[in-house]
Amino acid sequence: MVSALLTGIATVASVSVPAAAAAPAPRTMADVIAATTPADWRPLDPENTLYLQLPQGRVVIELAPAFAPEHVANLKLLVRGKYFDGLAIVRSQDNFVVQWGDPKGKRSLGTARATLPPEFTVKLTPGLPFEPLPDRDGYAPEVGFSQGFPAARDTARGEAWLAHCYAMVGAGRGNESDSGNGAELYVVTGHAPRQLDRNIALVGRVVQGMEWLATQPRGTGPMGFYEAPGQGATIASVRIAADVPAAERTALEVMRTDTERFRQLVEARRNRRDDWYLVPADYIDLCNVPLVGRPRL
Amino acid sequence: MVSALLTGIATVASVSVPAAAAAPAPRTMADVIAATTPADWRPLDPENTLYLQLPQGRVVIELAPAFAPEHVANLKLLVRGKYFDGLAIVRSQDNFVVQWGDPKGKRSLGTARATLPPEFTVKLTPGLPFEPLPDRDGYAPEVGFSQGFPAARDTARGEAWLAHCYAMVGAGRGNESDSGNGAELYVVTGHAPRQLDRNIALVGRVVQGMEWLATQPRGTGPMGFYEAPGQGATIASVRIAADVPAAERTALEVMRTDTERFRQLVEARRNRRDDWYLVPADYIDLCNVPLVGRPRL
Repeated sequence: MVSALLTGIATVASVSVPAAAAAPAPRTMADVIAATTPADWRPLDPENTLYLQLPQGRVVIELAPAFAPEHVANLKLLVRGKYFDGLAIVRSQDNFVVQWGDPKGKRSLGTARATLPPEFTVKLTPGLPFEPLPDRDGYAPEVGFSQGFPAARDTARGEAWLAHCYAMVGAGRGNESDSGNGAELYVVTGHAPRQLDRNIALVGRVVQGMEWLATQPRGTGPMGFYEAPGQGATIASVRIAADVPAAERTALEVMRTDTERFRQLVEARRNRRDDWYLVPADYIDLCNVPLVGRPRL
Repeated sequence: MVSALLTGIATVASVSVPAAAAAPAPRTMADVIAATTPADWRPLDPENTLYLQLPQGRVVIELAPAFAPEHVANLKLLVRGKYFDGLAIVRSQDNFVVQWGDPKGKRSLGTARATLPPEFTVKLTPGLPFEPLPDRDGYAPEVGFSQGFPAARDTARGEAWLAHCYAMVGAGRGNESDSGNGAELYVVTGHAPRQLDRNIALVGRVVQGMEWLATQPRGTGPMGFYEAPGQGATIASVRIAADVPAAERTALEVMRTDTERFRQLVEARRNRRDDWYLVPADYIDLCNVPLVGRPRL
């Protein structure tokens, strides 16, 4: 049973170790996390971390400049111009997204741009890290992780893109492909709407505080929009972590996705060996892979 | 573009119609629903419909006796014994499940049984309807719909089972496979946890009121359990629709999943032709197929 844990992982260091000398393979996600060393974790980059302040607390968002550089740069201009302060959550559609921004579109964008090129995919370059999952995906030729984000790639087309998994954050747009600018953001709160992949720019991922976004009361208007002012929670502020005094930052680190330990974590979830499970799935879809964070000591 | 709408659907009536005479293929889900006739809809069976009364309103659950006959029968004994009345939601784990029942397990089960055979799969018989999706699934050899529920089957093993999609309702169990009895129920509130398939008995699906379950505040204890009495919403009552006076029943019908119209709906979602979409996915995963309900006129 224990040796079967590693099925499907292409390169596993312990495979070359004589069986008799090998340490027991980790059985569960908890086992894997317990076995991590500091090298398995990374801090968030303060320059690419947002704090979204809701009545319930601070939501921490990690930005993905490698996948949407112009959107991230524009969003940071908006944040530094205090664009979001005092705006509200405007939409909560069950099993889909929660969205925030300026419902009337009347607030000035300041120095930020009103339109941006559609960064729905990026060019696949040797410099872009990508750790593939062992399993096949229906929506893309290949899926895996890039810099901690769920991602997909198509080597034939030379493209990579982020995937719409739970907690991913994107920049809303209208029908014109260049109409997104970061002033209207959404987060996935239900089953992964992967059909959005390659159709809109994802800019990051909620790392902490997702539960407050996910439980926003559903809007009763079309597409889950709220129908009257005051129905959506007010956003006290959005800040870039680098602009917040160090002592006031959220001390948080996330598990790296480019390590042997992470591959073990994926395998512990592909084939559950917890006592409760009778039939291990021998498969995992991209958006079922847990991305783990913890307080930074 | 319009002819490509039907790609991937194995048998489509309009394919045999000369192109010049064919009506335009429906482009969007709204188009498909607008084109439905009464034959595309079915009422819920009052004997297999539960009303779960929360402070926010009535949650309507359709039971699946074809897939878990003993669990459904036991659950109905519990409901008719008013087992759930005055109990509460005990667990809300972000991106996973909301669960309700008797946290201390002290309430009498009445005439209901304490253990049940593990109805995690059913024998595949010619009498069990199954409409396959055109796309491949990672967790099962084949997926599709059976009597309106998302389901999977394995013809080699001669088994079928319900799938853990958003809004599916199951009977919690302990480590022993016969320890579920319907007294502790859960509903999927996040990305589909398909690894639970074949490991636990699904008993039905929330058809209306899902938004109230999904927005229950997340529990702060391990696995999202609430940590103190009173944190979880109280369940005023659970009733079988057949036991409620006809005038007090929720008048609701659901779109059938065994019709040509439903295949069109699936295709309209596999390849979005809405003006907004630039890249149709040409794929849909089981839990992304919308199951549509509407007030019954």
